Amino acid sequence: MPRLLVQKFGGTSVRDIERVNAVADRVAASVVGGDRVVVVVSAMAGETDRLEGLGFEVVARPPPREMDVLLSAGEQVSVALLSMALMERGCRARSRLALQIGIRTDGNHTKARIEHIDVEGLNADLAGGVTPVVAGFQGTAPNGDITTFGRGGSDTTAVAIAAALEADECQIYTDVEGVYTADPRIVENARRLDAVTFEEMLELASLGAKVLHSRSVEFVGKYGVPLRVMSSFDEGPGTLITTEETTMEQPLVSGLAYARDEAKLTVLGVPDVPGVASKILGPIGAASIEVDMIVQNTGADGSTDLTFTVRRADYERARETLAGIQKVLGARGIEGDDRIAKVSAVGVGMKSHAGVATRMFDALAAENINIQMISTSEIKISVVVAERYLELAVRAIHDAFGLGDAIAVEDAG
Amino acid sequence: MPRLLVQKFGGTSVRDIERVNAVADRVAASVVGGDRVVVVVSAMAGETDRLEGLGFEVVARPPPREMDVLLSAGEQVSVALLSMALMERGCRARSRLALQIGIRTDGNHTKARIEHIDVEGLNADLAGGVTPVVAGFQGTAPNGDITTFGRGGSDTTAVAIAAALEADECQIYTDVEGVYTADPRIVENARRLDAVTFEEMLELASLGAKVLHSRSVEFVGKYGVPLRVMSSFDEGPGTLITTEETTMEQPLVSGLAYARDEAKLTVLGVPDVPGVASKILGPIGAASIEVDMIVQNTGADGSTDLTFTVRRADYERARETLAGIQKVLGARGIEGDDRIAKVSAVGVGMKSHAGVATRMFDALAAENINIQMISTSEIKISVVVAERYLELAVRAIHDAFGLGDAIAVEDAG
Repeated sequence: MPRLLVQKFGGTSVRDIERVNAVADRVAASVVGGDRVVVVVSAMAGETDRLEGLGFEVVARPPPREMDVLLSAGEQVSVALLSMALMERGCRARSRLALQIGIRTDGNHTKARIEHIDVEGLNADLAGGVTPVVAGFQGTAPNGDITTFGRGGSDTTAVAIAAALEADECQIYTDVEGVYTADPRIVENARRLDAVTFEEMLELASLGAKVLHSRSVEFVGKYGVPLRVMSSFDEGPGTLITTEETTMEQPLVSGLAYARDEAKLTVLGVPDVPGVASKILGPIGAASIEVDMIVQNTGADGSTDLTFTVRRADYERARETLAGIQKVLGARGIEGDDRIAKVSAVGVGMKSHAGVATRMFDALAAENINIQMISTSEIKISVVVAERYLELAVRAIHDAFGLGDAIAVEDAG
Repeated sequence: MPRLLVQKFGGTSVRDIERVNAVADRVAASVVGGDRVVVVVSAMAGETDRLEGLGFEVVARPPPREMDVLLSAGEQVSVALLSMALMERGCRARSRLALQIGIRTDGNHTKARIEHIDVEGLNADLAGGVTPVVAGFQGTAPNGDITTFGRGGSDTTAVAIAAALEADECQIYTDVEGVYTADPRIVENARRLDAVTFEEMLELASLGAKVLHSRSVEFVGKYGVPLRVMSSFDEGPGTLITTEETTMEQPLVSGLAYARDEAKLTVLGVPDVPGVASKILGPIGAASIEVDMIVQNTGADGSTDLTFTVRRADYERARETLAGIQKVLGARGIEGDDRIAKVSAVGVGMKSHAGVATRMFDALAAENINIQMISTSEIKISVVVAERYLELAVRAIHDAFGLGDAIAVEDAG
């Protein structure tokens, strides 16, 4: 029974023509083996940065609509090149842009969300023996404008197409062998995981483990798309993202993630009355700035301080937004720090165990790392620390949970 | 009365961000001055070459459909950047791609022809005070594929849009100050022409005077679009392309053009019977190879040699096509030379004068340059010479007709 696969290749997988040819070999092998394949490709490594740089050279804050036109050119180049390479191998490949196949999104430029995928064109391609090579990262707004999905958005394209076509598997090819217990560039003995649950993956992805775009993982949960993260360069099983907890003895913590490009803002001394948080965060949301962690401390004098984190790129804009409403809020002042980082421990195993947080905090204390903010969920504990302690914090926590040791099975403290 | 202008900027005019800003200043000045403007932009200088190079790195003969997807990404980048720069100057600019505004072409990839332009979107932009920034060089085939118009095709985009919108003037901004009597890089005393007729311009453009894409000049004749070639870098009147012979004393020769990237093929000893030329050139045309000059000599033995020229890039493919039909033709052999060049003298003034050809051939003979082929029309005489004699030939003919001397008015010999 031939399978229907969606194979997604990231920027490093198509960094140069040699790599493009290697990707074509891999896709062609699947097609020759009898599988039907939809390919999704990112821009060649470095190209999105180059294009973005041109935009910022023109103007300090490029208008998002034109930024999307600019950046989406990168994927247009890579789909054309990969299609050529596939045709050279006897595959009937055809490049497909978002404007051509109908990847319909909202109109939120530079961070659009997919609302619908027109499957007719892709199905016609597959029925006709054509391998569509789809430009990742890009979509079409209701008014016909080009939109993009934010960095890593090609993953979302792939998973959304896999969901729409009810594909047998969505394979995300990348420059790592799978999902690790922590970033191997920071933690020497980080270990590849055979499987993680999609809830864990969602936390890992959204928290900066750069293997997958978090929107793509949401689709796994929502539509049950079987997703596998694999290496473009080595043969290997990769990491399967499952909708179930697969092992009986679930480790306490499956992996660590970090986010380096964070910033925090504190609104000082606002009246501690109902609705003050939404008065602060409403304008931030209206400015399309994503807020991550939120902490509010109640003071003794009837006023309170509210701290939240945003992406570092949004820091200045968030500060200006707050400055504009400071008077209305009756706030004493605005403070901020754009040199912070977030480290998170993630694991479905921590649901049923106490003491995880304590072990994590102890590990940081032993290294004299001050914790600035804490946030927890059922399967995750996150802390904010000064950016300069990031690597040290990740290694300390990795050791504390014995993640580098493939044999150890963790138990609650 | 505000004018409706189409302003087209070539690759050198948007080579870097500094130039993009200079173009934006110029367009914004027109808009502030009250004109309504549609902008057409080429890819940044060097970008089309870079992209094409990537394609040829993948495969020796890139499939034309994917080549069009690849190359059209270049214009996508420049329209986004220029739109940003215009918005920064308070212009309500919006980038518009061929897929978005409906520049409808045939399906002949890499050398498509415009069949229709949907003016509704552009008119809506103009009516709403928006300055559309249109990607040149690209169109959409009936099946929704991206097509391109060949090098210099952005001129065609501009003129076709000017015709469709019935614009007051189509201004082609380039890196030269107008149309010259000959390429100033080859001929030191070449002179800018105030005006040329569109017939002359058509010959000059199609024969390699790289100022304008020949398809764009055809539109001038067909729709009477007032066209002006101007410098992006200097203020100046440029050269007006007219539909009339504007001066009473028309010079014998208005200008010289050359085409360097030419090749010739000779089919030797085919039976001299009716229909043999079409048997040879039919398969060449079917392979989408453009034939330029055709010369046939009748031999004494009932057989004939037929020679024709093609673009150098098509040479190998043309040779293979001929090799495939040699037996059917009963030809004795195939010969070729891909190191030839064509030099042409163009002028509506030669219509009513004899002796122009003689003066041209004398000039070449005086320099010991062998003429390999000759072709003439009402307003043009072309010769093929070995490529290494190209510059020498151009200078000799330029001198022979006194083109460098602004005062001299030529008379028939």
